Amino acid sequence: MADYQAPLKDMSFLLHDVFDVSTLWPSLPHLADHVDPETADAILQECAKIAEQEIAPLSRNGDETGVSFNNGVVTTAPGYKEAFQTYVEGGWTALGGDVEYGGMGMPKMITALHEEMLCGADISFSLYPGLTAGAGLSIAKHATEELKERYLTRMYSGEWTGSMCLTESHAGTDLGMIRTKAIPQEDGSYKVTGEKIFITAGEHDLAENIVHLVLAKLPDAPAGPRGISLFLVPKILVNEDETLGEPNNVKCGSIEHKMGIHASATCVMNFDGATGYLVGELNKGLACMFTMMNFERIGVGIQGIGAGVRSYQNALEYAKDRLQSRGLSGVKSPEKPADSIMVHGDVRRMLLNMKASNEGSRALSTYISMKLDIATYGEGEEKTKADALVALMTPIAKAFFTDLGFESAVAGQQVFGGHGFIREWGQEQLVRDCRIAQIYEGTNGIQAMDLLARKVAGSKGELFSVFADEVKAYIAETTAQNMQEFIAPLSTALADLEALTQEVLVKAAANPEELGTAANDYLHVFGYTAMAYIWAIMAEKSFAKADQDEFYVSKIKTARYFFKRMLPRTQSLILAIQAGSDVLFDIEDELF
Amino acid sequence: MADYQAPLKDMSFLLHDVFDVSTLWPSLPHLADHVDPETADAILQECAKIAEQEIAPLSRNGDETGVSFNNGVVTTAPGYKEAFQTYVEGGWTALGGDVEYGGMGMPKMITALHEEMLCGADISFSLYPGLTAGAGLSIAKHATEELKERYLTRMYSGEWTGSMCLTESHAGTDLGMIRTKAIPQEDGSYKVTGEKIFITAGEHDLAENIVHLVLAKLPDAPAGPRGISLFLVPKILVNEDETLGEPNNVKCGSIEHKMGIHASATCVMNFDGATGYLVGELNKGLACMFTMMNFERIGVGIQGIGAGVRSYQNALEYAKDRLQSRGLSGVKSPEKPADSIMVHGDVRRMLLNMKASNEGSRALSTYISMKLDIATYGEGEEKTKADALVALMTPIAKAFFTDLGFESAVAGQQVFGGHGFIREWGQEQLVRDCRIAQIYEGTNGIQAMDLLARKVAGSKGELFSVFADEVKAYIAETTAQNMQEFIAPLSTALADLEALTQEVLVKAAANPEELGTAANDYLHVFGYTAMAYIWAIMAEKSFAKADQDEFYVSKIKTARYFFKRMLPRTQSLILAIQAGSDVLFDIEDELF
Repeated sequence: MADYQAPLKDMSFLLHDVFDVSTLWPSLPHLADHVDPETADAILQECAKIAEQEIAPLSRNGDETGVSFNNGVVTTAPGYKEAFQTYVEGGWTALGGDVEYGGMGMPKMITALHEEMLCGADISFSLYPGLTAGAGLSIAKHATEELKERYLTRMYSGEWTGSMCLTESHAGTDLGMIRTKAIPQEDGSYKVTGEKIFITAGEHDLAENIVHLVLAKLPDAPAGPRGISLFLVPKILVNEDETLGEPNNVKCGSIEHKMGIHASATCVMNFDGATGYLVGELNKGLACMFTMMNFERIGVGIQGIGAGVRSYQNALEYAKDRLQSRGLSGVKSPEKPADSIMVHGDVRRMLLNMKASNEGSRALSTYISMKLDIATYGEGEEKTKADALVALMTPIAKAFFTDLGFESAVAGQQVFGGHGFIREWGQEQLVRDCRIAQIYEGTNGIQAMDLLARKVAGSKGELFSVFADEVKAYIAETTAQNMQEFIAPLSTALADLEALTQEVLVKAAANPEELGTAANDYLHVFGYTAMAYIWAIMAEKSFAKADQDEFYVSKIKTARYFFKRMLPRTQSLILAIQAGSDVLFDIEDELF
Repeated sequence: MADYQAPLKDMSFLLHDVFDVSTLWPSLPHLADHVDPETADAILQECAKIAEQEIAPLSRNGDETGVSFNNGVVTTAPGYKEAFQTYVEGGWTALGGDVEYGGMGMPKMITALHEEMLCGADISFSLYPGLTAGAGLSIAKHATEELKERYLTRMYSGEWTGSMCLTESHAGTDLGMIRTKAIPQEDGSYKVTGEKIFITAGEHDLAENIVHLVLAKLPDAPAGPRGISLFLVPKILVNEDETLGEPNNVKCGSIEHKMGIHASATCVMNFDGATGYLVGELNKGLACMFTMMNFERIGVGIQGIGAGVRSYQNALEYAKDRLQSRGLSGVKSPEKPADSIMVHGDVRRMLLNMKASNEGSRALSTYISMKLDIATYGEGEEKTKADALVALMTPIAKAFFTDLGFESAVAGQQVFGGHGFIREWGQEQLVRDCRIAQIYEGTNGIQAMDLLARKVAGSKGELFSVFADEVKAYIAETTAQNMQEFIAPLSTALADLEALTQEVLVKAAANPEELGTAANDYLHVFGYTAMAYIWAIMAEKSFAKADQDEFYVSKIKTARYFFKRMLPRTQSLILAIQAGSDVLFDIEDELF
């Protein structure tokens, strides 16, 4: 496999040329205290080093060896413990944390790019700090001061890690059905009892303690999702003097054997009267968990980008080296026994699909991160709009980036031909590793329903208008002649999306099944349209500098590829949606 | 995993209702000697038994245990040897063989359905008899009488198996570059020396001898593909009295560790002055091998169908059992804690995509098999047309069925949610196993070029016209009112495909790169259009019997789904093709 190369140049382009952080960040005072453009560049450069040199080399062996389980003890693959220690010593576990508890307070724009590098290096590794950061976010926002002092500080320091314990064997998407119980104790704590499955980083040997966030119900809680509370349950109890005390009554029962991410411990966790502490209000646990889940959903979307980028880098290296047949329009390398497969249109198609997807996803992810930062640190109308866009874009980030990432992983494997199926080349591992990203943290089907039913229909189109208005304003103000090749199709795509949204909402008012039927395809139409908007902005910024560096020329040509060859994908999706739901529901279950 | 259930009812529908073999077969005299409809039904029923009861149960353990290699000796996973013996004793290795040498002479319409059942049960297992049958076909068509008497009879009897040795590490698609040498000996035999990689069933313990068909070059052979000859190289030399003699100088150097089909031995084969016998004419080896490759390509396409069907069966069983959330239009199972996920539009969408793909692919595969049988046993204009359609449809069978099969495998995994990623459910194995089918036997990109450049453009549209004329005739004669919902979109799809073909051929005359750029998308447009034709026929035949059996109602409703929700996929593909090749070639290799 090609060595992983963190795409620093593209990241720098996004921060500086496209989203102009040197103007943005000073406009967000509480953020500007912690970060400036130079610091950001330095952070990303350091992150690239650890991703490329410490983490990426683990990936292949991590896949082969996997995580081992022995009587409740989980041992990570060779090298993971040392690499995690190096990661901790570099201060990376504090990167996005609340400064009041020892975090570095970096904006999402930085932490997201940092996450992409971890995922490009090794998705399995990225999950240990990823879950910790997500759990930390939920604790920072909802836990008591005491819990934050005691736990959050040690998570930021990297001494302890975090997990999120939601799923039970009969309750995945439908968390309202969970059976895990929490019994109130006289000292204000709770005894938590139940079995959770699919718990990433639920048990491992990377840290001395693990802070589980557990969804459970009080005995007298209301039925369904309104009776769920969130509890902090440490693996090892913490004494009053903050030293570690007795083990808590929580044990890893087994680990799963999976298609991929073999180096990530996916645990069955048994809570047997384990001591837990309430986070947030009673019966409001789902909302508290959603703080974490939204964070994680963008993070999972970024896994798709990381895998797609790695796949592209490998496939490109292979395509340049592999000599096979001659170009259709004539011999390109007469001095060689055959031309490199870069001469073949179909190979270029696969590579450019990957390139346009990866760069488009990274840019859209950075855009969403920027809106998240404005939502967190901004004020007034800008903040309100940013909140709307984050709500709208989070499910798109999760589902669209992972669908495209999987497509890129598979396409990269295809470029390798037979060698792509052989383990030693590493390409098949990418396919296996990133497949889970379309499933966990809410399947992509659930994301699509979140977008269409909860966000678009739920707001009666209001959230949608925030997006549409922003794009329309951009179209109106972008009058440069050289931009019209992008602005014209962007206008059409937006008009298509608006008409489609209207049509679906009208139909859904008469028959709500239209939402479920349309959701997946709708999310993709939205995704491609949003990506077209971002590609147009990137092209615009690149025109200004095209004579300075070929990087910008490549950007413009890739934008052109996206508009000509990928954006038309919306047309078939729209036709499928317009066919309506009857054709799916008129066929009785027995006829399947 | 759900037990595999061979889709006998659908197969019977295709043979009897759709393609009316009781009329067809008597019209092909040499075929009618061997097969009649009752025999065919009996064969398929017996095949279903062995596939369901003997082969399918091996699959999961075969994946876990895999094939082992020890100093040149390859051992298959537990149970494979016994199952292969049972398969041999059932006479299955003779099924499609030439009757003159002990074969049963069954038509491709039967052997293809038999292959689907093997692949649905376990792709790995299917490869051992699959390669043997393919090699047998090449020997039957091109080898001397002596070789046929000596080798073919023992392959049909199941005593010996076959392999095809084409690929070398530097020569996959581009076989003209192979380095394996064949030196003529005084006795008329050859000494073959070279290394072949990716040799399926190159070495194993299922049979006492293996008959390798090896591509090699004589020392004075012309350069490139015109200097390739085909040799029969037995693993163990055969004495004059037909007993087994000394081992030949051929050895398995290692086996590959792969993403899937772990129970299939993928071997590096070292020929070191091995004794070989010429098959066909000198320097015409590629043509002889193509006899086998065309057979294998349809067979590989069928692997996609088998995997797609298994995935659908598993996912459907899971979807009916899994309770999670409530239907959007109201509670469907008030007596249960949640509705089954069959109520969700997005789950139905995934299942119906799979159902429509699987049944459409099986029908199209049976159609192609029928044309192959007519090409083999027919005469006059019917034979000529059938030859054209087989040439045109073989790459579509290989690439389109495997792309759809992979999509179905992935969709089935998605229906399972998190459980789809866990090994014990078997769903992820299907994804890993069928992924290779898009790659080997000529990547799907190569198939697309075979279709567009070699067949469509190469015949200046003549082969295409045979297809278009047949569909037009069907449209013209199908005037029933209830068929117009299918005939109208079929007409449009055919007109779109014709216009697209014309446009691409005109553009390609000016710039041949248009072919490579368009090929993949073109193959899919063609595939969906051909499938629409077949779905229309199936709907027509089902209308006549819809009051007899709900099977036919399901067929009509699935046809409707295909036309409304899947056929529109052509529209985006057409737009991408129309964007042309410049956008792929204007970007210099250094800018990737």
